Amino acid sequence: MATRSTIMDTNSFRPEAAEGVAPEILAMTRRRARLLGPAYRLFYRDPVHLVRGEGAHLFDADGERYLDVYNNVASVGHGHPRVVEAVHRQMTTLNTHTRYLHEAVLDYAEDLLGTMPAQIGRLMLLCTGSEANDLAVRVAQAHTGRRGVIVTAEAYHGNTAVVSQLSPALGSAQPLAPWMRTVPEPDPRLAGSEDLAGWYAAQVSAQIADLERSGFGFAAFLADSIFSSDGVFPDPAGFLAPTVDAVHSAGGVFVADEVQPGFARTGSAFWGFERHGVVPDVVTTGKPMGNGIPVSGMAARPEVLASFAGELPYFNTFGGNPVSVAAAQAVLDVIREEGLQQNADLVGAVLLSELRSLAAEHEVVGQVRGAGLYLGLEVVSPDDGAPDRDRALDLVEELRRRRVLTSVCGGQGNVLKLRPPLVFSPSDAEWLVTALAGALTTVAP
Amino acid sequence: MATRSTIMDTNSFRPEAAEGVAPEILAMTRRRARLLGPAYRLFYRDPVHLVRGEGAHLFDADGERYLDVYNNVASVGHGHPRVVEAVHRQMTTLNTHTRYLHEAVLDYAEDLLGTMPAQIGRLMLLCTGSEANDLAVRVAQAHTGRRGVIVTAEAYHGNTAVVSQLSPALGSAQPLAPWMRTVPEPDPRLAGSEDLAGWYAAQVSAQIADLERSGFGFAAFLADSIFSSDGVFPDPAGFLAPTVDAVHSAGGVFVADEVQPGFARTGSAFWGFERHGVVPDVVTTGKPMGNGIPVSGMAARPEVLASFAGELPYFNTFGGNPVSVAAAQAVLDVIREEGLQQNADLVGAVLLSELRSLAAEHEVVGQVRGAGLYLGLEVVSPDDGAPDRDRALDLVEELRRRRVLTSVCGGQGNVLKLRPPLVFSPSDAEWLVTALAGALTTVAP
Repeated sequence: MATRSTIMDTNSFRPEAAEGVAPEILAMTRRRARLLGPAYRLFYRDPVHLVRGEGAHLFDADGERYLDVYNNVASVGHGHPRVVEAVHRQMTTLNTHTRYLHEAVLDYAEDLLGTMPAQIGRLMLLCTGSEANDLAVRVAQAHTGRRGVIVTAEAYHGNTAVVSQLSPALGSAQPLAPWMRTVPEPDPRLAGSEDLAGWYAAQVSAQIADLERSGFGFAAFLADSIFSSDGVFPDPAGFLAPTVDAVHSAGGVFVADEVQPGFARTGSAFWGFERHGVVPDVVTTGKPMGNGIPVSGMAARPEVLASFAGELPYFNTFGGNPVSVAAAQAVLDVIREEGLQQNADLVGAVLLSELRSLAAEHEVVGQVRGAGLYLGLEVVSPDDGAPDRDRALDLVEELRRRRVLTSVCGGQGNVLKLRPPLVFSPSDAEWLVTALAGALTTVAP
Repeated sequence: MATRSTIMDTNSFRPEAAEGVAPEILAMTRRRARLLGPAYRLFYRDPVHLVRGEGAHLFDADGERYLDVYNNVASVGHGHPRVVEAVHRQMTTLNTHTRYLHEAVLDYAEDLLGTMPAQIGRLMLLCTGSEANDLAVRVAQAHTGRRGVIVTAEAYHGNTAVVSQLSPALGSAQPLAPWMRTVPEPDPRLAGSEDLAGWYAAQVSAQIADLERSGFGFAAFLADSIFSSDGVFPDPAGFLAPTVDAVHSAGGVFVADEVQPGFARTGSAFWGFERHGVVPDVVTTGKPMGNGIPVSGMAARPEVLASFAGELPYFNTFGGNPVSVAAAQAVLDVIREEGLQQNADLVGAVLLSELRSLAAEHEVVGQVRGAGLYLGLEVVSPDDGAPDRDRALDLVEELRRRRVLTSVCGGQGNVLKLRPPLVFSPSDAEWLVTALAGALTTVAP
């Protein structure tokens, strides 16, 4: 169980430690505190005030250029003209709901489902990844007639009442569902001499058995196949297959939360689950789907959807509206036409190799893991190799001073999360590696 | 408790009763059935295929013009150029999340909070009304330390797992929360000789007492102040005041769900709760807020938010992003600059009066109720004045043939829901009244 919030409270601005922050920035933070709810968190001890974006770059109010190594929402690049144009054209034409007929939502559904295994035959469109996971849990529970859901130890699946209770990464103040169980992150070091795939299936099977004993029964294993908030664990590709077999043997549903790895990010595959050679029962999508226009999806096997949606009406006012669909369609088109999956693969591979070279030179860098343009770099103590959260946060701040934007993830909060827009170029990668080398020298001279 | 779904399953297309439907429309319905989840419902026995919108008008693929008397999302009018332009400008500039500083979200929060009572001091931005109500329930429960929520008998508050359980309008297949209680719709006929205000407060107090006895305790009364899905009950303005006093006396939270009545719709007030002279603890907003761009809000008294958000991080990836905020700001600006609140007031009053004249001429029309541009028209049996759902549905279909788009609401499904964009003009009202007079003659010759 998490004892702190790794997702939200890491490198936050704190008014009580704001020395050195420019007066105009401080004034904005005070205005935020006065107007917005206290749950809002600002990144960085010295927050950034961004006014413009282009490709993988962001610009602050002083015109300074930043390298975006964090934002997977603007996946095809900030302000991509193709998405801007598609949204503009549709907004001038029509934006209404799905109780009237519209071609675009059907064309998009056909296109998106075409990227998934043939078994995943139906799509529902919503506005946020949270809504998609919330619905996926209801669908899995309706299909199985049971309640229990298994997630990973540091999972984050969204912000609704129910999925918050399935998100231990929110920290110890967040109550968790009594019908939730966790499995550890799939870290080969935890598996020890066992093979990871078998060990992981055994972990999940043990929690299935526990749910069955508890009377809740087992409904679903809900997981992000790159295990991003657990600290990025992509390897070896395929290790999830025996786990998914175990889920199916127990009559459960595998919900692949593709909000993080989906839409070509992992380079070798369009969907994260593909790397594992598995076919999910439900696939949820979100963040990068509309390049910033709120759109999300829940695709499923028809037979899994049937029990839920045969009886229960479900309507999402904005979900699948023509403007959201125009954005989503433009994103799919751009990924293909600009070869962004290949770019993620190529640039990601170069980056992984360069970061591993850095690791060899810097004692405070532990493992570097990644698939495509989703990478994690561990920051560890030079004395004993233990996770070093404080130094990781210092590194994030030091990178921000070098105008490179990123953050941390993982149960110990010590893994640098490197998740740039997919248009990240070789020279962007060069900038990142150079900045990181300098920042490492500063935080661990 | 609802025994059928009034919200979703009213005037739906049914493939088994599709005679007379054009082949190209049928082909689209089959494509939908093949690609989208079975929960999707299509309006009308003969569905409409809309391709363009302008103001209060919509156009189908054959170029036929329809009068939109249903869509409160396109509140300032379909394709309003000011909203289109604001979104386009911001999309070409920057669209990112709220962990970086941005002026527009602060300007908007200040502007929106300025339209509310001074006690409502903090805003959180989300993507859908469902997300706003889901969060409001969590906030109320965290603030009071209790669980119980009271809603109306035919309430619909959204589609997440938790708010679906607070939405009896979803019908008998939807499980309801054990900690939920309902009160009847505020229909003066149910209050009999008692005054509505006192009777309603007594209804709510009885449910508060029941929740206290049950051990769940009382956290919140969650209500839409125009009681739209209950059948539209706006009068007399002020009747909610003793109820809100009772809620506060019991230490509970009043959540005003303004997704339906908010943003100037009721004409006499910008917010529905204002008509009742009450100050809510939490205000949720949705549908019309961004004229179709997914954006919603939860505004609250700071002391009510404190217990939730002081400890719990809450982050909404798309919520409050600069593009959503640009749309929302343009909507606020247009409402003011085009005087849409006054338009709702004036055109709404004319419409109410004309519809009441129709009622006097047609035995199948019962009460006509409304505030501004949110009106409900009861369809009843000419024999005994009982609610006549089937005839109401026939009337909706007959109006659709006359190219007037609307639907029904209410526990008996017999109330025509008239909820057009706020730019509805006197000649639009004329069209509606003429079409309705003709349609009434057809369904009740």
